[in-house]
Amino acid sequence: MPPRLIYMDHAATTPVHPSVVEAMLPYLTEHYGNPSSVHRQGRAALAALDEARRQIASVLGCSPREVILTGSGSEADNLAIRGAALARRERGGGNHILTSAVEHHAVLHTVEQLRDHFGFEATVLPVDGYGRVSPADVEAALRPDTALVSLMLANNEIGTLQPIAEISRLVRARGVLLHTDAVQAGGLLDINVERLDVDMLTLAAHKFYGPKGVGILYVRQGTPLLPTITGGSQERNRRSGTENVAGAVGAAAALVWAQAHREEHAASLGRLRDRLIEGVLASVPDTVLTGHPTQRLPNLASFAIDRLHGAEELLLGLDLAGICASSGSACTSASLEPSYVLRACGLPTELAIGSLRLSLGYQTTEADVEHVLATLPPLVQRLRALARMMQA
Amino acid sequence: MPPRLIYMDHAATTPVHPSVVEAMLPYLTEHYGNPSSVHRQGRAALAALDEARRQIASVLGCSPREVILTGSGSEADNLAIRGAALARRERGGGNHILTSAVEHHAVLHTVEQLRDHFGFEATVLPVDGYGRVSPADVEAALRPDTALVSLMLANNEIGTLQPIAEISRLVRARGVLLHTDAVQAGGLLDINVERLDVDMLTLAAHKFYGPKGVGILYVRQGTPLLPTITGGSQERNRRSGTENVAGAVGAAAALVWAQAHREEHAASLGRLRDRLIEGVLASVPDTVLTGHPTQRLPNLASFAIDRLHGAEELLLGLDLAGICASSGSACTSASLEPSYVLRACGLPTELAIGSLRLSLGYQTTEADVEHVLATLPPLVQRLRALARMMQA
Repeated sequence: MPPRLIYMDHAATTPVHPSVVEAMLPYLTEHYGNPSSVHRQGRAALAALDEARRQIASVLGCSPREVILTGSGSEADNLAIRGAALARRERGGGNHILTSAVEHHAVLHTVEQLRDHFGFEATVLPVDGYGRVSPADVEAALRPDTALVSLMLANNEIGTLQPIAEISRLVRARGVLLHTDAVQAGGLLDINVERLDVDMLTLAAHKFYGPKGVGILYVRQGTPLLPTITGGSQERNRRSGTENVAGAVGAAAALVWAQAHREEHAASLGRLRDRLIEGVLASVPDTVLTGHPTQRLPNLASFAIDRLHGAEELLLGLDLAGICASSGSACTSASLEPSYVLRACGLPTELAIGSLRLSLGYQTTEADVEHVLATLPPLVQRLRALARMMQA
Repeated sequence: MPPRLIYMDHAATTPVHPSVVEAMLPYLTEHYGNPSSVHRQGRAALAALDEARRQIASVLGCSPREVILTGSGSEADNLAIRGAALARRERGGGNHILTSAVEHHAVLHTVEQLRDHFGFEATVLPVDGYGRVSPADVEAALRPDTALVSLMLANNEIGTLQPIAEISRLVRARGVLLHTDAVQAGGLLDINVERLDVDMLTLAAHKFYGPKGVGILYVRQGTPLLPTITGGSQERNRRSGTENVAGAVGAAAALVWAQAHREEHAASLGRLRDRLIEGVLASVPDTVLTGHPTQRLPNLASFAIDRLHGAEELLLGLDLAGICASSGSACTSASLEPSYVLRACGLPTELAIGSLRLSLGYQTTEADVEHVLATLPPLVQRLRALARMMQA
């Protein structure tokens, strides 16, 4: 019989909560209207969409008009960065974008495309050994022509939190727009946009027990935005395309549920995470914690394990033991290159190629953690022996 | 008791077929992995995504590598037009885009944004009274610097089919890229990309009994494309973002189902449509058929009804009688302006503001059609009397 599945890859994606599936189903069956249609089927769809947007806005602490629903977190990041950078430049608001070396590729590759294909200038800020951006570095890098700063709330590979509210005071006081990619934080941190004091914030429903294929972008009223998907003028002309009603309903239900349980989950996950970190560091020699020791996501434990031939075999070995884990980001897990995030933190390549991310969810138990702690040390020992043999 | 719902707005969106919901559900519940993850949950998701892509490619007659999954038909149109226009221009392939006056806004507004914000030139071709583009006009408008031609396969408001294969011979022979928006045709026409001979083709799952929030873009191998959503390099680096696995599975199931029943549906829907057209024209005086009398979608009957004060009251009156209909495009149905499609066909404003679109689906019955034919004439008579009184 296969072992019970221990899913420790919630940073890659989460199971959809059963109550979320239940909320979505009527909009995949009887209520199938297009929200733009004036008849009863259309009105029912529009009412559900409006209610979903209202629920999301209520969690974010903003107006429903400031919520744009997209097809993914990546699309939301793209719309924020492309949309605001292009619109600001047209209004004489500058040609320079500021970001950091540890952002998700949805931010970094977008900034790079704007630089390489659309004539923008970009500054990519370094981070410290924990993956933190220094507010002083942000302040020093701001230029009179800086249009936009994009910095993540929490890192997807190492869980490090950025001091967004502190950075915001420096950035927004200069009249520069601040976007934060909060995709990893949606169900785990306070994402109130007034307390964070940001102009734009990105979420992805599938990271907080909602469906894949739904992103959320908060855009503060008055923020200039050139739409990246033009057409039928949905989402107040900022993101065209027939609305994914079931997806919006699911995203809203998931966000409300995750945020209602946020403090409770953060506390219980934090304890499991700390046990995992303590246990791994105690039982797997020559292993370091990556990311910040305390300023990190409550559900994410990440390590660099020395003297492995790469993380692939480690992940497959864990998988055989019924443990779903990741080497860092799911988006780049097929790559044998060391993670750019770990390199930015200054980790030497031989350590960075042995990266392991264990990200917990509300269903994770103490027994799951103990099973991982029992499985990992002998597996690493075996793989290290193998790596030695292959080098010999 | 409310009357049985007669849904005649399938051009706006369709109910999701029960077998499609059933196919999707496992990917909203037990198989929740991220397709980029290497563990068993990730591999199960990737296998489902690969199979969905293979099924879609099989219907389109292309390689699975040529299928890009997006978050909507509008996104697919945007990616085709922006992506190819920008990439061709960078390679010295021209700065001119050719389209027609009756395209969906996802095409027209995208071409307009490229013209107004990105320095492209655009030619918008006129249509005849039936909404048809003339191949000779296309040929005459092609310029040495034309990068891309985008013309729809079937119009969403009036159902008129464009002679895409004939146009293709002129366009592709000149080395110009041809994109077709086939969103309205997905479940009703042959969409084999070799027979249509196009470089790019757009579909939207919710138009053929699939879920909302999934678009499909066929892109012929070798077609240059600058991605419009950058990030984690999914979809062979042409559309980043965690894949909507359940949506992809649903889109594939719906496309396979709709295409398997295409000829049967086209025949039965065609008969119902013709009965509807004949009946409406016979019983509602001063009414004309809009669009082409024979070269039109088998499920779409569209009319312009003279001496109405606007289509809004007509739609609400039909809704009260349990009939879901549209004035043209769902995306612009809230507007009191006459449809730009009907204006392009040369209809005078007083006729164009009285537009009615009845679009049928596989569940539509003869009794439904007869109910509409019994309801419409007295309703129009009442509204005309009302319009006369308001003018007096």
